[in-house]
Amino acid sequence: MKRKARNKEETYHIFPIGRIRRTGNDVHLEILEPYRPALKQLDHFSHVIVFWWADKRDNEKDRGRLQTKPPYAKNKLTGVFACRAEYRPNPVAMSTCRILEVDGKKGMVRVANIDACDGTPVLDLKAYFSVCDRVKEASIPGWLEDWPEWMPEDGIGPED
Amino acid sequence: MKRKARNKEETYHIFPIGRIRRTGNDVHLEILEPYRPALKQLDHFSHVIVFWWADKRDNEKDRGRLQTKPPYAKNKLTGVFACRAEYRPNPVAMSTCRILEVDGKKGMVRVANIDACDGTPVLDLKAYFSVCDRVKEASIPGWLEDWPEWMPEDGIGPED
Repeated sequence: MKRKARNKEETYHIFPIGRIRRTGNDVHLEILEPYRPALKQLDHFSHVIVFWWADKRDNEKDRGRLQTKPPYAKNKLTGVFACRAEYRPNPVAMSTCRILEVDGKKGMVRVANIDACDGTPVLDLKAYFSVCDRVKEASIPGWLEDWPEWMPEDGIGPED
Repeated sequence: MKRKARNKEETYHIFPIGRIRRTGNDVHLEILEPYRPALKQLDHFSHVIVFWWADKRDNEKDRGRLQTKPPYAKNKLTGVFACRAEYRPNPVAMSTCRILEVDGKKGMVRVANIDACDGTPVLDLKAYFSVCDRVKEASIPGWLEDWPEWMPEDGIGPED
């Protein structure tokens, strides 16, 4: 189903603060020099939420997709707000990642994994705060009930 | 500390898909008509992650703030990527909310609470998936260790 209209008068501007880098088993976020001071204290957290721009989905067609049959449940038509597809009106994706190392000087945040390709623009990092992000009783649809109750410690990669 | 430079060549565009509405104790997300089909199946989830635009922080000064002393830990200088301040280079805030009601026709998602004001632009909704968002062993800095281990069931409001 396509979007019919967009309120073009009200547009906000965002830009990369870094890039995702994948080389073999190494996965890290490369933060641009001007933003490196914002990493201070991040090494005291176990996890970080990475906002990244799904650049391959930044086109009219993908930004107009509002419903889908997700690959994990082919016969269920679902709205994009009820799933995590990269295609959505504003293709800002988020991935929670386990932090392995933070080097503030080099602007390097090494993570266990992330479900995004090498070169993907990073928009923001937010430390994972249990009080904000960790839901005690979270329920999902019955047709997804065999899914894990926790994020895998080794993260989710692009192939998963 | 101020940002020194921005890569102005690479800018992405995002826009509201709805607004936050607060009236007395009622807190809901009002989704614009064209995007309502994207709500399909969201009522089968207990929680939703709301991306909202911190419009009051969309100015050069706030987007240039990279470090802060958060109100909950006044003597700790921390990078904005290690906290959840609204001011940051790309002021896309996120709040996990318990869903009370979804009315797809009216474009209404009633939630327990959200830490944003009436009228705030909504950018995206993502259903809360335990496998993506629920971290079993999450650690935070020692100076925050008296904080709750779970999100409060009634949510976090703008005054909290």
